[in-house]
This record gives sequence, C-alpha cells and structure tokens, in this order.
Amino acid sequence: MIGAAREIIRERGYHAMSLAEVVERSAAPRGSLYYHFPQGKQQIAAETAGIHAGEQLAEIRRLADAATSPADLISGYVNRARDGMVASGYGRGCAIAPLVAETSAELSEASRLGFTRIIETIAFQLIVLGLGNAAALELAHAVIAGVQGAEVTSRALRGPEPFEAVRGVLVARAQVHPEGP
Amino acid sequence: MIGAAREIIRERGYHAMSLAEVVERSAAPRGSLYYHFPQGKQQIAAETAGIHAGEQLAEIRRLADAATSPADLISGYVNRARDGMVASGYGRGCAIAPLVAETSAELSEASRLGFTRIIETIAFQLIVLGLGNAAALELAHAVIAGVQGAEVTSRALRGPEPFEAVRGVLVARAQVHPEGP
Repeated sequence: MIGAAREIIRERGYHAMSLAEVVERSAAPRGSLYYHFPQGKQQIAAETAGIHAGEQLAEIRRLADAATSPADLISGYVNRARDGMVASGYGRGCAIAPLVAETSAELSEASRLGFTRIIETIAFQLIVLGLGNAAALELAHAVIAGVQGAEVTSRALRGPEPFEAVRGVLVARAQVHPEGP
Repeated sequence: MIGAAREIIRERGYHAMSLAEVVERSAAPRGSLYYHFPQGKQQIAAETAGIHAGEQLAEIRRLADAATSPADLISGYVNRARDGMVASGYGRGCAIAPLVAETSAELSEASRLGFTRIIETIAFQLIVLGLGNAAALELAHAVIAGVQGAEVTSRALRGPEPFEAVRGVLVARAQVHPEGP
C-alpha cells in the first residue's frame, strides 16, 4: 500500500490521492488499509515520505562508495534523478515535495525530516570525499534544491535540460572547492 | 479572482483549490466567475500561471536594468525569491509549479509556456550582461531550477539556507564565465 501511495503522490501529488485509489492500485483488502494506517491518508503519506527518504539515503551511500571525488558523487546523483525522470516520461516527481504545502503538523514534520536527512547525508559524504564542512553543507543544500527544481521544470518542459544545467553548475562549484582529500 | 486563485495555488497547490474558495476570497459575485472563466478551474489556473509568469518577466527586466554583471542579476533574483518566501512565513511557493503534475493539455501547456518564458528572459538578460549564449542558457536553466527547488526545501526546513546555497553556487559559476562584456 505504501508502494501504491508513493506512485500516486509522485505522479499527481498528495491532494490528488484518494484512499480508494491506494486500495485499488495495491490490490490490498480495504480493511487492511485502516488496520495498518488507522489515521488514514496523512499517516500513509508521512510513512511514504520516510521510506522514500530512506531509499535516497541508501542510494547516496552507494553512489558515494563508488565516487572518487565530490564532483563524481554530485554528477552521479543528478544523473540518476534525470534518468528516473526521463524513464517515467516526465510523469513522476519526488514523494516528499508534495507534502511541503500541507499545513498539518504530521506532514510538515515528515517533509522537514525527509529533506534534512537527505541533505545531511549528502553533506557528510562530500566531507568524506574531501570537502570542508561549510562547502559541503552549501553544496548539499544546492544539490537537493537543484534536483528538486529540475524535477519541476523538467516535467513542465518535458526535456532533461534542467538536470544537465544543474549538474554543470554544481560540478563546476565542487571542482573549485578542493579543500584536500 | 485571479489574485485569489493565485494566492490559493501558491499556498496549497492546484488540487486544494476550490472555486467556492476563489469566490469567497475575491468577494466577487459567484456568477461572474462562470462569466469570466466559463471553463472553470483549469481555465482560471492557466490564466493565473500566465499572469504570474508575466510579472516574473517584468521583475527580471527590472533587476537586469539595475545589474552590473550576470552574477549581480542572479544574486538579485535569488534574493528576491528568498525574501518573498521568508515574508510569507514559508507559506507561499510558485503559482506555476503546482500545475506540472496535472495531465490536462491546458495546464501542461500553461506550465511549459510559463517556465519557457521565464528561462528565456533570464538567458537573454545574461547575454546582454556579457555571457556567451551557451553559458547563459545553462545558467538560466540552473537559476530557475535552483530557485524552484529552494522554494520546496526552504518550505520544508522553514529556513532560508537553500536560497543562500543556491545563490552561492550560481554566482560562483557566473563569475567563472566572463565571456566578454
């Protein structure tokens, strides 16, 4: 059911998601939704955001293990986001971003925690790869903002140019910041 | 009514907007909504996106007239977005971005056209300020992606750091691209 909710949120956002569609897409019995998610739609979206963030963290660590420089990690992360967007036919964005416009405390906290974990994980891996602390935190914020924004404008333009541009700018910045390995 | 629709879309997105709330916030007679927008919610959102983009273009031209370099224009544009976000208490995003997840041809076209006009206007002004064509288009894509993403993560984190980071990375890139005045 989390998988179905995540697909719907990534395709059309949180507001467009109905619990009936979650049940239908997951082919789960309706009763089990209320059993696992007694607080309903907000609860399933908050848990979905946590799982989405957790997968991002694992992917960032995997990319960092294979990377030879900060620029290499950044390039790999942006390319992976671009490839996912192109593969979805420009139809699927982030599972956390649609929650930032919600005023409920549960969803605000889910989006704050999700983005905080992702930004801190990138910053940490950039430090491991040789950047200074301040440069790593600046770049981590810019990487996530750049990718989030490219997911918006790339969907609108139906082309990968925003990801290419974001990668070019971020990689150039990472290469100017070689504060020792 | 466009003003009311724009506020609601920026605060909570397209899906959360009801025509009843548009009528209520604008204090316009209900009949006039259907008179001016016979195609209803999609039409009002598409026209709102066009007006929002038009105001962005005017603001970019105003900033460019006062700017002495590409970095100066970029810095002014990012700061303006940051100030607007802070002033709204992290409660108001872009009026075009929420339309990219919609599958209707009218809304897809409105978001495509809105972002295209904004990116091309920034690219043009960066060329006027001295950048080469390819560098200007790359930076324009990165400026809009960076600001759009900072609007997402800044709302989630309830802090201006994403805008500061995006500005730092973009300005550094603009300063390395001095392809003649």
